Amino acid sequence: MGISMENGLSTNKSVGKQSVLFQNPPCVLGYSSIAGKKEGEGPLGSCFDIIEEDPLAGGKSWEDAESRLQKKAAELAIQKASLQPKDIRYLIAGDLLGQLIATSFGIVDLEIPMFGVYGACSTMGESISIAAMLIDGGFADKVIALTSSHFAGAEKQFRFPLDYGNQRPLAATWTVTGSGAVILGSPKEVKKLPEDTNPTIHITGITTGKVMDYGIKDSMNMGACMAPAAADVIFHNLSDFDRKPDYYDKIITGDLGYVGADILKDIMKEKGYDISKNHMDCGVEIFSKETQDTHSGGSGCGCSAITLTGYVFKKMIQREWKKVLFVPTGALLSTVSFNEGNSVPGIAHGVVIEIME
Amino acid sequence: MGISMENGLSTNKSVGKQSVLFQNPPCVLGYSSIAGKKEGEGPLGSCFDIIEEDPLAGGKSWEDAESRLQKKAAELAIQKASLQPKDIRYLIAGDLLGQLIATSFGIVDLEIPMFGVYGACSTMGESISIAAMLIDGGFADKVIALTSSHFAGAEKQFRFPLDYGNQRPLAATWTVTGSGAVILGSPKEVKKLPEDTNPTIHITGITTGKVMDYGIKDSMNMGACMAPAAADVIFHNLSDFDRKPDYYDKIITGDLGYVGADILKDIMKEKGYDISKNHMDCGVEIFSKETQDTHSGGSGCGCSAITLTGYVFKKMIQREWKKVLFVPTGALLSTVSFNEGNSVPGIAHGVVIEIME
Repeated sequence: MGISMENGLSTNKSVGKQSVLFQNPPCVLGYSSIAGKKEGEGPLGSCFDIIEEDPLAGGKSWEDAESRLQKKAAELAIQKASLQPKDIRYLIAGDLLGQLIATSFGIVDLEIPMFGVYGACSTMGESISIAAMLIDGGFADKVIALTSSHFAGAEKQFRFPLDYGNQRPLAATWTVTGSGAVILGSPKEVKKLPEDTNPTIHITGITTGKVMDYGIKDSMNMGACMAPAAADVIFHNLSDFDRKPDYYDKIITGDLGYVGADILKDIMKEKGYDISKNHMDCGVEIFSKETQDTHSGGSGCGCSAITLTGYVFKKMIQREWKKVLFVPTGALLSTVSFNEGNSVPGIAHGVVIEIME
Repeated sequence: MGISMENGLSTNKSVGKQSVLFQNPPCVLGYSSIAGKKEGEGPLGSCFDIIEEDPLAGGKSWEDAESRLQKKAAELAIQKASLQPKDIRYLIAGDLLGQLIATSFGIVDLEIPMFGVYGACSTMGESISIAAMLIDGGFADKVIALTSSHFAGAEKQFRFPLDYGNQRPLAATWTVTGSGAVILGSPKEVKKLPEDTNPTIHITGITTGKVMDYGIKDSMNMGACMAPAAADVIFHNLSDFDRKPDYYDKIITGDLGYVGADILKDIMKEKGYDISKNHMDCGVEIFSKETQDTHSGGSGCGCSAITLTGYVFKKMIQREWKKVLFVPTGALLSTVSFNEGNSVPGIAHGVVIEIME
């Protein structure tokens, strides 16, 4: 593998302009996926650990419901890895809600030192990226990356009250209700674990995204806002590591949806890369286009998170896919900036996930 | 120094329950402080790099103004360190506004790979903590940590419209208008720099906080919400590193204000530590109690950020203080959670800053 060192680089772990190659790739010790009812009825329904049928998840508000999903996802991942919360050195988590309230109230009882992160729907990529660096850097042996979203909480915050019954344009996506957690560990820490969490899944590298603003102002077409950011990350991943798209069995974006995925493939073709053969978008996969009426597909932090922990990891453990580039995508949408006439910038974070026997 | 290794630890950089000791302490290559007019009129006014007299900073909204402060702070720090944006490997930044819009729109032109963070007013501690780990871990040679707050933007988001002219209780703090940036670098990267940025200031350790919820529901008394989180971080810093409070020339909290600072000292006394002799709170220092009518003091991400980069670093360069424990504090306040009757949890992040000749 040819690795070029460029500006601002003097370390042996940083590669090219925006990537990191891990020397001791952190491994996945445990993971979980909690999905809402609609997600459970979708094409990936059978993959998720738990389907939460109650939209309030036993709570008293949409936000409280989302907090409960996060708590449940964290606890299940910890349990599946045969660990206790006190074994986890850092928790890196965030969500879509202002001031990350789903996270703050969801994780308080775990009492784990915590870094709150915000990358809109790219959060799972951001939290796994930081988690992997903290482990490979020698600062922790176990870190949990966690995120969530909730359809009703997101609609309440970003769009219209559900009772209003607004019509949604075909470019709009449907915020996934769900929460996913991934526990990363140092390869040294690997011990006997249940079969479905056997630590052969490793994070071998990352490519960190920049905020990109193409001036798109349509909050009902977030795929178009995010596609340039996804393209930039995929392009730099391939060029930093000097790889062709077919190095990966799958290049998996977060929630571009049908509209955004087409834009991404077009941009990549212009950049000289054809990813149409191995590209997959979590937002496209998670709902049925024919029967679930979600228009452009799923979105939200939970969309890529539970598709990763429910579906992608299963495919990898079954050795159907051995090398995956996971690129959750975020639209930095705020009602305040949107109502002030601003655009919706995008960001994406790339994580290279590989099976290492 | 006695260092005890406990649960969940197998690395030589992690210390005690919540701390990290850096093997090659990252150094401060550059920093900047941009303050608003009121902050410029306060006791620390002469310390700041730039006083922005225009509350809109030449922008068209409070949020736009805050974005401009962040951009200006980042550019000034980069310039003071004789660097270019492309020399910076990562930008770690956040603010108080929902979905971090001050940050997203402020830093887009810098085109630096970015991790968005949210820790309310503890953000400068969180961003410096992650930046220092990425450098000591070998993933970057230069990282910028950046944050901001704006009085009018924060009041608009969290409390009352300014035009309403509400009365503020004595426990309330005043959100600082300002932005601070710190560029950290690998010790290997030190080169000839302007005198006031001479790289003798190092980050030697961190202590990462947990979300703590004491059930306090008063958004006008955030000092009380945050004091337990600050106490927890200071306690663990002292116990993890086996230090007494007088190891530090100053133990500096972010924005507890007069009310919260008293609570902190009481809690620490109960834990067996007397920090009353060397404790300082940025919120207490930044405004004059006698002439500026800010009640319990200053607050906001910008409060601790510009006090650190404007005042604390100057004291350290002058060798008045050689060892500082910097503990920005955050109240995880959201209008949504607050209006739903929830409490205001707190978090704090500790950074050990030392002069190393």
